[in-house]
Amino acid sequence: MNHRMIGYLLGIILAIEAALLLLPAAVAAGNNESVLPYLITIGALLVLSIPAIIFKPENKQIYIKEGFVTVAIGWILLSLFGALPFLFSGAIPNYIDALFETISGLTTTGASILTEIESLPRGILFWRSFTHWIGGMGILVFMLAILPSSGSSAIYLMKAEVPGPTKGKLVPKMRKTALILYGIYIFLTFLEMLILCICGLPLYDAAVNAFATAGTGGFSVLNDSIAGYANPAAEWVIAIFMFVFGVNFNLYFFILIGNLRDVFKNEELRVYALICLASSTLIAINTASLFEGRIGDCIRTAFFQVTSIMSTTGFATADFNAWPAFSKAIILILLLFGASAGSTAGGLKISRVLILFKSIAREIRHILHPRSVNVVRLDGKVVPDETVRAANSYLIIYFAIILASFLAISLDGGTTETNITAVLTCVNNVGPGFGDIGPAGNFAAFSYFSKLILSADMLIGRLEIIPLFVLFSPSTWKRH
Amino acid sequence: MNHRMIGYLLGIILAIEAALLLLPAAVAAGNNESVLPYLITIGALLVLSIPAIIFKPENKQIYIKEGFVTVAIGWILLSLFGALPFLFSGAIPNYIDALFETISGLTTTGASILTEIESLPRGILFWRSFTHWIGGMGILVFMLAILPSSGSSAIYLMKAEVPGPTKGKLVPKMRKTALILYGIYIFLTFLEMLILCICGLPLYDAAVNAFATAGTGGFSVLNDSIAGYANPAAEWVIAIFMFVFGVNFNLYFFILIGNLRDVFKNEELRVYALICLASSTLIAINTASLFEGRIGDCIRTAFFQVTSIMSTTGFATADFNAWPAFSKAIILILLLFGASAGSTAGGLKISRVLILFKSIAREIRHILHPRSVNVVRLDGKVVPDETVRAANSYLIIYFAIILASFLAISLDGGTTETNITAVLTCVNNVGPGFGDIGPAGNFAAFSYFSKLILSADMLIGRLEIIPLFVLFSPSTWKRH
Repeated sequence: MNHRMIGYLLGIILAIEAALLLLPAAVAAGNNESVLPYLITIGALLVLSIPAIIFKPENKQIYIKEGFVTVAIGWILLSLFGALPFLFSGAIPNYIDALFETISGLTTTGASILTEIESLPRGILFWRSFTHWIGGMGILVFMLAILPSSGSSAIYLMKAEVPGPTKGKLVPKMRKTALILYGIYIFLTFLEMLILCICGLPLYDAAVNAFATAGTGGFSVLNDSIAGYANPAAEWVIAIFMFVFGVNFNLYFFILIGNLRDVFKNEELRVYALICLASSTLIAINTASLFEGRIGDCIRTAFFQVTSIMSTTGFATADFNAWPAFSKAIILILLLFGASAGSTAGGLKISRVLILFKSIAREIRHILHPRSVNVVRLDGKVVPDETVRAANSYLIIYFAIILASFLAISLDGGTTETNITAVLTCVNNVGPGFGDIGPAGNFAAFSYFSKLILSADMLIGRLEIIPLFVLFSPSTWKRH
Repeated sequence: MNHRMIGYLLGIILAIEAALLLLPAAVAAGNNESVLPYLITIGALLVLSIPAIIFKPENKQIYIKEGFVTVAIGWILLSLFGALPFLFSGAIPNYIDALFETISGLTTTGASILTEIESLPRGILFWRSFTHWIGGMGILVFMLAILPSSGSSAIYLMKAEVPGPTKGKLVPKMRKTALILYGIYIFLTFLEMLILCICGLPLYDAAVNAFATAGTGGFSVLNDSIAGYANPAAEWVIAIFMFVFGVNFNLYFFILIGNLRDVFKNEELRVYALICLASSTLIAINTASLFEGRIGDCIRTAFFQVTSIMSTTGFATADFNAWPAFSKAIILILLLFGASAGSTAGGLKISRVLILFKSIAREIRHILHPRSVNVVRLDGKVVPDETVRAANSYLIIYFAIILASFLAISLDGGTTETNITAVLTCVNNVGPGFGDIGPAGNFAAFSYFSKLILSADMLIGRLEIIPLFVLFSPSTWKRH
């Protein structure tokens, strides 16, 4: 293990966080709010990061193991420091609550322990939504984009932070790949911001909601989430952008370079769009009677809620807790799937679900014709056995973590429905669940123990489990 | 496909069912109840089975595909005819309800649509509990035990009907293996019956409860299930036997031949016992306050409920719906696992869960040390990659079926908790769930559509999915 290089990279990550905190500090200053909470945090970050950066290691080569460890520790440190402004400003007086809110932000979950949002300082709410944007594409990808290429090591950092079963380079150089991804990300965020302004949202609201959409996070600045704007046009815009940010960003790059064939050939995109359309239609039909003939409202609400859950954003324009059982069942299933690999969304990812389903078909073919050659194909290409196996293992760990967390938080009491959906929505980085934590509820009532469990679940979900497992695996720290 | 041999085997299966129906007919006669419902059913079975048996095929060789098809069609036919006595006696006036109850019996689930049990004819209740006993060890295994060996074909029938990821022959001859298994099964059933009589249960009650325990079914003849006897000694006996019938029957054979080393080495048994003990202890502590100092009652109830759910029997001595959230969470997780492979229990099976967990450990080792050789071991032996892959595929299909069924039955309305646990308890052949279908509830309120879905789930769970998939796979019926 190249400990010095890990320390160096962590130093850079903390320095980036310090730099990013200048933005909410500026918003606070512009709104005549105290900038002290941000400045103290920035100071603390620099005290740690400057020495780490100054002592540049000679050997810069790292491998997959160091990649995972860096990503895991990096995200934990980002969260620990990112929580400080909430604490110092008095917006969230308890550190564990502040940590939960920060992890929920960075992991783009959007689950909140706040019961009243609108009275909080504008700078704090800006930071809260901005954490979504930071966490969405990932801070290590950001680091790769802005720093001179660290050569062959970069691929391992990218692999560890970008979610999904298949991770490809867009162009031979990692730094350029990271730049392209962040370029697309920034462009789409600004585009949404602009359109939301045109729809009548104030610039501040357009910005924070664009951050939350882009990262597929779901924090909003109104107590009633997006429903609070009572702005159908804005709802459509956000719904469409939630869908857009749930698409693999590689496809936008293909569009950019005119390679439309690979876009249309993409199975994940087709299945994603199909599930989205089918679910919206079924929910619209099933909830139609609730809208008393207002068909437009019905369709918009169904589509909004489906894209919100599938993209794992978690914005709300309706309390689906009050929907009929069939619509709730659809929402619960969508809660598991998530959107595309290589997007900012959480969940199992459609491509992983596709690989898993295709591996069943292969297994049945194998039983019936044991001697035939059987492979799993995605987009016409053979999926390596190793990827299929990794997807299988992912599913098992995923369920094991869900069950263990469900058991742990049940110590608080609460209903089965609340507890199981609380874990699901946190592991999948969605935000709302059913029962007490529905779109109209929040996570305030959980004990600190449960909040820590759920915080761990959010990190596990965002980093797709493996980095944290590697970090806490004894064999990682053994000397060879 | 050897269609003639499949027809011949199905004929034998139906003839066996006709023979087995003589037993409840005798009970009915002894209680001065009408024997007509049984005789008509027996007649119908013979009309179909005799011609099938007479035209014995010349080519008796079948392979794995025919094994699956025979088992799948066999179980469907057994259910369709087994439902007739309920219908003809007027005990269950609707055929779909009767079918649900029969499938629940044969698959050893124990989920009931009956709201009042005690007023039903004794012969009918005997048949209802007897279906558990028939389905527990399997009717094809029974056929193999009583018929002259059908040579190399027998292994495929055995493989298709006996649940669990690893299916071994105990002795070189399949017929002898089947005989040994049924011998142990019958011995243990009689032993329990005898002890229950000593505990003070009437012979009839001892018999039907022994059938339900042996098959890990859970139908009882009292409205309050086992709690209705208010007999702590009988509760202990049944609890211990539920545990016993959740153990791989191969281990009893090992004990019989004095091979204790293989018994103690058995990982599945150790993990099964450990989960059982740990869950009972945690639930006893968590529910202690409900028992107001009656520690004996508390421990017995916790142990009874844990063995009942783990062995997928589903007998009740307490309404765990009213337990604290933590105990309910334990019950929900146990609902998924089930007991041992090669036992009469349902669920995922402990050995499959063990293989899955070990395959995660292998995956993480593989990520950290890509070039090292990694295998999954169980009981010290290497588990073939094919078995690991099959366990993975099983898990995926299992969850896909659970989600699809949950979605379908949600059309009825109902709560998320009721609907999801209804599917889980049916797929895992347990019986009770949470909410409306808790130990104090029943499945009467579901629509006929949902009852058919849940019936299919019970069959899928008992036959471990693959046979029914093979039956309905178009490639099975293609001519090659």
